[in-house]
Amino acid sequence: MTTTTSPTVTTGPMPASAKVYRSGVIHPQIRVPMREISVHPSAGEPAVTVYDPSGPYADPTAGIAIGRGLPRLRETWIAALGDTEAYDGRDLQPADNGFVSADRLTPKFPLSHRPRRAIGGKAVTQIAYARAGIVTPEMEFVAIRENLGREMLKDKLARDGESFGAAIPDFVTAEFVRDEVARGRAIIPANINHPELEPMAIGRNFLVKINANIGNSAVTSSMAEEVEKMVWAIRWGADTVMDLSTGRNIHNIRDWIIRNAPVPIGTVPLYQALEKVGGVAEDLSWEIFRDTLIEQAEQGVDYFTIHAGLRLRHIPLTVDRVTGIVSRGGSIMAKWCLHHHRESFLHEHFEDICQIMRAYDVSFSLGDGLRPGSVADANDAAQFAELETLGELTRIAWQHDCQVMIEGPGHVPMHKIRENMDKQLEVCGEAPFYTLGPLTTDIAPGYDHITSGIGAAMIGWFGTAMLCYVTPKEHLGLPDRDDVKTGVITYKIAAHAADLAKGHPAAKLRDDALSRARFEFRWEDQFNLSLDPDTARSFHDQTLPKEAHKLAHFCSMCGPKFCSMKISHDIRDAARAEAGMAEMAGKYRDGGDLYMPVQEEP
Amino acid sequence: MTTTTSPTVTTGPMPASAKVYRSGVIHPQIRVPMREISVHPSAGEPAVTVYDPSGPYADPTAGIAIGRGLPRLRETWIAALGDTEAYDGRDLQPADNGFVSADRLTPKFPLSHRPRRAIGGKAVTQIAYARAGIVTPEMEFVAIRENLGREMLKDKLARDGESFGAAIPDFVTAEFVRDEVARGRAIIPANINHPELEPMAIGRNFLVKINANIGNSAVTSSMAEEVEKMVWAIRWGADTVMDLSTGRNIHNIRDWIIRNAPVPIGTVPLYQALEKVGGVAEDLSWEIFRDTLIEQAEQGVDYFTIHAGLRLRHIPLTVDRVTGIVSRGGSIMAKWCLHHHRESFLHEHFEDICQIMRAYDVSFSLGDGLRPGSVADANDAAQFAELETLGELTRIAWQHDCQVMIEGPGHVPMHKIRENMDKQLEVCGEAPFYTLGPLTTDIAPGYDHITSGIGAAMIGWFGTAMLCYVTPKEHLGLPDRDDVKTGVITYKIAAHAADLAKGHPAAKLRDDALSRARFEFRWEDQFNLSLDPDTARSFHDQTLPKEAHKLAHFCSMCGPKFCSMKISHDIRDAARAEAGMAEMAGKYRDGGDLYMPVQEEP
Repeated sequence: MTTTTSPTVTTGPMPASAKVYRSGVIHPQIRVPMREISVHPSAGEPAVTVYDPSGPYADPTAGIAIGRGLPRLRETWIAALGDTEAYDGRDLQPADNGFVSADRLTPKFPLSHRPRRAIGGKAVTQIAYARAGIVTPEMEFVAIRENLGREMLKDKLARDGESFGAAIPDFVTAEFVRDEVARGRAIIPANINHPELEPMAIGRNFLVKINANIGNSAVTSSMAEEVEKMVWAIRWGADTVMDLSTGRNIHNIRDWIIRNAPVPIGTVPLYQALEKVGGVAEDLSWEIFRDTLIEQAEQGVDYFTIHAGLRLRHIPLTVDRVTGIVSRGGSIMAKWCLHHHRESFLHEHFEDICQIMRAYDVSFSLGDGLRPGSVADANDAAQFAELETLGELTRIAWQHDCQVMIEGPGHVPMHKIRENMDKQLEVCGEAPFYTLGPLTTDIAPGYDHITSGIGAAMIGWFGTAMLCYVTPKEHLGLPDRDDVKTGVITYKIAAHAADLAKGHPAAKLRDDALSRARFEFRWEDQFNLSLDPDTARSFHDQTLPKEAHKLAHFCSMCGPKFCSMKISHDIRDAARAEAGMAEMAGKYRDGGDLYMPVQEEP
Repeated sequence: MTTTTSPTVTTGPMPASAKVYRSGVIHPQIRVPMREISVHPSAGEPAVTVYDPSGPYADPTAGIAIGRGLPRLRETWIAALGDTEAYDGRDLQPADNGFVSADRLTPKFPLSHRPRRAIGGKAVTQIAYARAGIVTPEMEFVAIRENLGREMLKDKLARDGESFGAAIPDFVTAEFVRDEVARGRAIIPANINHPELEPMAIGRNFLVKINANIGNSAVTSSMAEEVEKMVWAIRWGADTVMDLSTGRNIHNIRDWIIRNAPVPIGTVPLYQALEKVGGVAEDLSWEIFRDTLIEQAEQGVDYFTIHAGLRLRHIPLTVDRVTGIVSRGGSIMAKWCLHHHRESFLHEHFEDICQIMRAYDVSFSLGDGLRPGSVADANDAAQFAELETLGELTRIAWQHDCQVMIEGPGHVPMHKIRENMDKQLEVCGEAPFYTLGPLTTDIAPGYDHITSGIGAAMIGWFGTAMLCYVTPKEHLGLPDRDDVKTGVITYKIAAHAADLAKGHPAAKLRDDALSRARFEFRWEDQFNLSLDPDTARSFHDQTLPKEAHKLAHFCSMCGPKFCSMKISHDIRDAARAEAGMAEMAGKYRDGGDLYMPVQEEP
């Protein structure tokens, strides 16, 4: 067996950034993290507060020790509710790590914690508490987090956007969060066995979130790499992380990830279940699947992708597709259904699954096993038939006080994205939509972060609550650390563009601060306020590396003579000096006729 | 003086691709280039024909010699019309190359050709011929080029899309092209002094085109680099190239570029004019500008950005903007206007400019000097006031039988893009729109190919005819060769996504061919059919480098056990075997109720 090594991960603050924490009012003990990016004193502007899922890793005062895990901040919150109990939990089986030989076994996480579960069949979910009128610490945490200190900027916030029927408030209160969760319009994925979590919400009336996928495969694998990928992904802005590992050591790697994750961790339990039966889909059974759910729920997985919407009768609808069934989970279940010629155990045992989910507060991410894998298959009968079933399952899950979101495609050309979003809202009762892309064309492998970034921005605008990233390696290989970063930044762009277009009250503050920095040649501020300061700085420095150029009133694009912004400053002074011009411009803006100054004869 | 060196450029075919040429019917002498991408014989499919602006460089049978220039194929077409004459042309002035010293002078292009111009004030423009009912060789060339051999695939073409009022025909005839050009809804930028050009059209009812900007600056410069950037940009799909040089040697570098360019070359003549007056905007004059227009028209520039829409009365509208005036041309002219307190010479002499444009068939690209440089300034009074003026100028240019397109922004959040497009269509009488991006957020310098690719795809869908690329270096530095490629591929994605969404009849053929290759594990075909085969292949090979893996029925993403496509093939066979299932699926697709097979008891 390998000796226990504690992997190193990326730590340290982002440039010009301070991690700050805000306390609760209802729950004074909560400490809600945000990032404040300071700007040059010459700007005379306050620091810009941005949403920050990076956890303690970016906090220089936090002592990080991967072998110990993050502080278990929710432990007291959960215990205080009095609805759960600690118990011994399931014994680790050789199958859990794919029967890996001792010399290849990823070491166990050094500390073990007894798992908790609901007492006496209670639902210990955020939706159950919300419906009971209880504002949990998680809900207040989310409210403070979403506001980003907006209360101090109230007079600056002009709403401007088109939200397609979303109900984004000017100001998020804890009560608003409770109500959204109670209605099922938002979820707070927060397994009671993942107390290290900093709670966040996924819902159409909150900021658009993004997910990054990590995970080893049968071809390549390392625990240290995957833990660092998780830390790296959240450093750049991933709001949740899915561990899609399919190789050996799945259980132990997941333990290391969850114990060090401040963000919700999602999985597709079917992948591990399939490993347990040696990769033979037909050998899967409810018993093995159920056991896997318990195993992962005890570890603290916050949401499970469950492909229960794929029904036997849907499968023939895929026969004439250009790309058949492209969801791994979907294809595995379809194979099982056809072999046994019966409905899947996921569908048959859906209510049993609900019982497990509510005992740990694992959220459903109802999988789209029949998502289109090509633009030719977008919005087809198979996809929409499954979506209707997902709507039925959503209502069942809600009856059991379970939190639910719905997974979506896939490959969808631009003109079919809105239809897909509207259909989801309609048939799934506004449960949050969580989409992969969608990719708007099939012809650019190697650039599918971009083909899908286009679709992601649009569907995020139309109402999708969380966007699952796509990396440049999509369709071609497993993403490495650089690909993870590119995928995350691309999806932060898509999510932010969506927030802007929806008219999210505070979204534009960062754009405006960066644009003012740009116009005032505060290069350092421009870098620091950007999504990726390191890249912005290095691109600038390729042609103008000297420190003095950071103060220069031009850049290498146009050079000093052609700098429009430099000229624009001269103009601004001149234009302001022009007696009456600004006033006349005001009249023009108010709808008057075009202002025609009397021409002076030269 | 530097000795004459002939720079080397990238040549050779794209993978699995053959350059083919189609002849005309009205004009049998024309040879319209296309690229045919062949697929593996096992597919039993024809080669996929794609639009190909790369010119002879990708044709292994073409002898490329940069010092000689490309074949002057349009010379006989132009001469045959009998409306033009060769003349001695303007003498080269030291100012034309920015008074560069002899030791730094870029050598003259080795061959010189006498320029041509219209005889007796005639309009020798494509729109003039179109209005006279003449189908020029350029028009038939464009018709064949746009169809991409569609006549052979007629029965395969199902229209599916939303074109927002565009009038895209099933099949493009030469007469359709003539009519679109006559109406001003499309332009064929084709200076009579650029006979090396392979004609192309820019219009809402044709394929969406993309432009790549190249050009040296005061900070960095080399003729060989710029020529290679042009060849490199068209290799990856740029339909036109703008030479935005602002440093010394402008004239000579441009000569090398145009003589070797099979695509239209655009410029902003103001940049060279400003160099001629030592960079002092106030010293610009109509005489210097006019002289520059003649100089560049004689060289063969196909379209000029002219910022004639920026009027004195618009300038005060920019005073309260977050980023003022960000267009270089706009800021230069605004400075001139304020200094002299009069309307710009571009506006005052607009009809004089028309006279020059029609004598050489240089197309107008009416510049948006007041485009927004931040999302805060999008669709504001300044931008729209200028756009209205551009509409007025469009009508004047049309009266002079000049071809016109309109430049657009800039930075625009998603919810304001449609408004911008609709406004342009309305006030500019459907003259083609040519937009930079737009960038949908300001917060991602270093990734503005992506922030803008999102906006470009959307505005292309809504009706923009040509998309001006943005590279990762935007706002930070001058793009290098890699940045040019990234920008071009990103914009090919945006343009193609737009064509798909508009329902362009043939756009989906390439997607479907690639998706079939993907589903059938024809890895080589998947690479070859992609926009960037080199990158797709190298990403795949990073984890599975062996040749055998090019035939493997899985990849490193999921490994063999989890390959959904592999499983999907098994399913397809099983599902097809299921008696009645496919038939019932058919019934479902036809609107019947959900098919519920009788459950066999296991």
